[in-house]
Parts: sequence; structure tokens; C-alpha cells
Amino acid sequence: MELVGIFAFALSGASLAVERDFDLVGMAVLAETTALGGGVLRDVLLGTTPAAFSQPAYLVTPLVATAVVFVWHRRLERVARFVLVVDAAGVGLFCVVGTQKALLFGLAGLPAVILGATSAVGGGVLRDLLARQDPTVLRKDSQMYAIPALLGATVIALGQWARIDTPTLAVGAAAVTFALRMLALRYNWRAPHPRR
Amino acid sequence: MELVGIFAFALSGASLAVERDFDLVGMAVLAETTALGGGVLRDVLLGTTPAAFSQPAYLVTPLVATAVVFVWHRRLERVARFVLVVDAAGVGLFCVVGTQKALLFGLAGLPAVILGATSAVGGGVLRDLLARQDPTVLRKDSQMYAIPALLGATVIALGQWARIDTPTLAVGAAAVTFALRMLALRYNWRAPHPRR
Amino acid sequence: MELVGIFAFALSGASLAVERDFDLVGMAVLAETTALGGGVLRDVLLGTTPAAFSQPAYLVTPLVATAVVFVWHRRLERVARFVLVVDAAGVGLFCVVGTQKALLFGLAGLPAVILGATSAVGGGVLRDLLARQDPTVLRKDSQMYAIPALLGATVIALGQWARIDTPTLAVGAAAVTFALRMLALRYNWRAPHPRR
Repeated sequence: MELVGIFAFALSGASLAVERDFDLVGMAVLAETTALGGGVLRDVLLGTTPAAFSQPAYLVTPLVATAVVFVWHRRLERVARFVLVVDAAGVGLFCVVGTQKALLFGLAGLPAVILGATSAVGGGVLRDLLARQDPTVLRKDSQMYAIPALLGATVIALGQWARIDTPTLAVGAAAVTFALRMLALRYNWRAPHPRR
Repeated sequence: MELVGIFAFALSGASLAVERDFDLVGMAVLAETTALGGGVLRDVLLGTTPAAFSQPAYLVTPLVATAVVFVWHRRLERVARFVLVVDAAGVGLFCVVGTQKALLFGLAGLPAVILGATSAVGGGVLRDLLARQDPTVLRKDSQMYAIPALLGATVIALGQWARIDTPTLAVGAAAVTFALRMLALRYNWRAPHPRR
Repeated sequence: MELVGIFAFALSGASLAVERDFDLVGMAVLAETTALGGGVLRDVLLGTTPAAFSQPAYLVTPLVATAVVFVWHRRLERVARFVLVVDAAGVGLFCVVGTQKALLFGLAGLPAVILGATSAVGGGVLRDLLARQDPTVLRKDSQMYAIPALLGATVIALGQWARIDTPTLAVGAAAVTFALRMLALRYNWRAPHPRR
């Protein structure tokens, strides 16, 4: 399940590398960074060894995605919509897992929410930095991406505070994140932005 | 006192986000990064949990600054000079606190000075990376910013070496940093740069 | 030996700073980042205090390189070829040392190889981010740089797996990395890249 989310993230990284005229190394670096960067950032900030290093599957999955993009990148546009759906599921999953891990390490609610959302969107920010484009999650012409993650993370933190951190709550929080992201994509919802 | 410096840093981050056409999420991310990024960088390099996560006030202050900029960003130009003064005070404070913390963790003088200056200017560098502009502290057309921080940090390190690490020295080092930064702004002083 | 590699890396950082119109602070920051950034990244990911902070020589060497570039940058072009050779030797050395350190910390083969290669090329990526140019190692018009490092790291990891991690193997792995990089420069070899 987690690996499917990692795969979707990695596809977006490797595809951006093709667009930016990077070579195979650049594709692999962007795939790994997009897929695992958020979790690595979270774990470094928590002061623990990145989970990405503990299981070969985490590091191999983005390499598989790189190979897929290398060979079929011209046909991937046809499944772009499907990849966005899997990506949204990944955001839901990662913000929940990330917030839970931060709470487990003893962080208070607000920092745990921020670290949880970082798990979900941090990889994309690192991808954009390496590919030298404005971080998508920060731009006003992007559909909501960080806000669903922050919402899902907040549900988890409130659940722990109310002592109802059950598996049902976790699934619910991930589902809310996923649904809000899909609605934002469908109806082109954007985050508020300052008037100029 | 520390929160005032954080607030000034966060104002510069959120204002840059407005300039760069980011949305509310982008403003909050840039405010948090500018205000807390230097200290987080220092703490990650020291191998300790970022101080920013230990007290809600650290994370909330940049959010307040974001709200202020969101509503009043068109009027903030009038107080730009004042913000620069508070920002300079923040640089003085953070380079002293950062160097002291690094020395406390057993670092030698030179690495402690570098980490202390990183505390003070690192957040601004991360802000510029996310907003995709040349890091201000590196450019030759910027007034001195890192050099006052390095000077203040050096005073602290020399003080520890000479065993005179009193509160008076800390205040003096912060004051020297603040004064040098203000003079650099007033008289447009720049760091040396190579002839081309 | 290690300091010679650090010096070569720092020369490339400080020279890029001159090209990008940075001041003396920018030169020093780029020199330190290029020379030590890869190792610091590796150590942060391993959860240990960066080796760069343990010995003054590590931090001082890039400052010496900065001074050299500041004074003689117009004459450095004549020795550019020589600097490339030393740089390639540095890549060989750092990928071997980095992989060995990661294995020592108990990492499995694949993560150790990735961290070893990160030690060697990570500083250059950070340099390019700060100087706002496409990371050289990712671009398709660059000669192979990361691939030799990955190869050398793989030799070390396989050696440990086969229980032949002798000094001879380490020297051999560094030599293979160095030779492949020099051949790539000489014959303009590039990494594979996707057809568009």
C-alpha cells in the first residue's frame, strides 16, 4: 500500500526530470527525492535514522518507476489522471503515518501536524528545488495540496488529544485528505491568496 | 525578546511570498522557514531535536506574522525601515544564542562560530532557495549581513576561550552585531568582492 | 590526501561564486558547501555529528581555497584541467570513505551505496542549488560524474558482502571511480538519457 504511494510520487519526479532534460541519473535522483524526501526530512527532524534506509523496497521502488518513465514516458500522459489519483492517496497515507510517528516521538500537536504534512509534501518541494521550478505547493495557481495534508494531520493530532487514536480514525483522516485533494483537483479549488 | 526577532524574520518571509505570487500556504511556509530555519539547521547539525518544536510559541509566531502580512501587506512598506531594525536585532540575538548552544554541545571555536552565524542567516538562505532568488547574503550588491553575525559569534567563542563568558559579553556581542549591521545599512557597506 | 580533495572541491565552489557575482562571504559559503556538504549530508542522514566539525583543518581548507580564488581567480583557468583531475581523485576517495562509513553504521548495501555516492556528489548539488543553476550531475549534457561514484561505492559494498573489505579493495574502488571519471571527461561520455 505504502509502496504504491511511493511509486506514484516517484513517477512525478522522474517525469519532471524528463521534462527538464535531465539524464538517467537525474531521473533516479528526482524519483528518489520526490518519493522519499518528505519522510527523510521528517525523520532527520525527529533525530532518527530515515525509515527509507531500513528496507530495500523503499529505495528500489523509485528505481522501478524511473525505468518505467525512461521507457514509456511518451505514453504516460494517457494515465496522468490515474497517477494524480494514486498521488492523492499517497498524500493521505503519508500525512497520517507522518503525524502518528511524530506524536510517537513525543512531539506536541502543532509540531506533529507540521511534520506530518512535511512527510506528505516535502518530497515534492525538494523535487521542485532540484528541478529549479517554483515549489508547486507554494504557488497561488496550484490546486490545494498542502491544505488537505494539514487537515488530515490535524484530525490525527486531535484524535490523540481526545484519546481516540483508533485505526478507524487513521483511515478516516487519510480518506478526508484524499477526498479534499480530489475535490480541489476536480473543481479547481485554490488556497486563499493575498490581494495585490 | 526572541519571539520579536522571530516575528521580524517571519515578516520578511511572508512579504517575499506575496511578491513571488505565492498563496497563503506559501506565505506560512516562507514565514516559518525564514524565522525558524536557521535554528532548525543548527540543531539538526548538532544532532538534537530542533528547539522550534519544543514550544508552541515558536511555531505560532510566524503564523501570526503571516496573518498580519496577508491583511496589511500593502501598508507594511511604511514600516519597512522599522522591520529592518528589528531584523538586525534578531540577527544579533540569534548568532549569540546559536554560538553558545554549539559551544555547549562541545564544538570547537571555528565550527561553533559557523553554526552560530548559520542560526542567524540560515533561515534567510532557505527562504531565498524556496522563493528562487539568489541568496541575499551571498550577493555582492547586498549590505553586510553575514559578517556582523560572524563577528558576534567570534566574540562569544573568544569569550569562552578566555573564560569570560558572562551575560555582559553576550549582550555586548549581540550589540556589536546589531550596530555593525545598522551601520552597513546606513552607509551601504558591502563585503569585499573579487575584481573581475 | 583527503584535504587535497576538499581543496579541489572548494576551488570549484569559490570559482562558481565569482562567476555568479557573489561577494567574499558568498565565495566562502560556496567553497565550504561544495567541499564539505556531501559529507555533512551523509553524516546528518546517519544521525552522527558531521565529521567536518571534528577537525579544524576540514573547515579551514575551504577558506584557504577561497583566498586563493579571491586573489588569483583570473589565472586559475590555466590550471582548470589540473583541478578537474584532483576533483576526480576527490570523488574516488569520498565515495569509498562514505560507503565504508555507512556500512560501519549498519546500513544495508543499497542505502550504503547511495550514501557513499551522496558523500561524493552531494556537495556539488548543494553548490548548484545555492548558485541557482541546474545541478550538474543531473543534466544530460554533463559528463558522467555520479555514475563513477556509484560504481566505486558498489565495489565497496560488494566487497563487504563477499568479506574482502581489504585496503587493496578500497584503493581499487577509488582508482576505478577516478579512471571512469577521467575517461568520461576525455571521451565526453554521458549517462543514458530518455529519447524525447
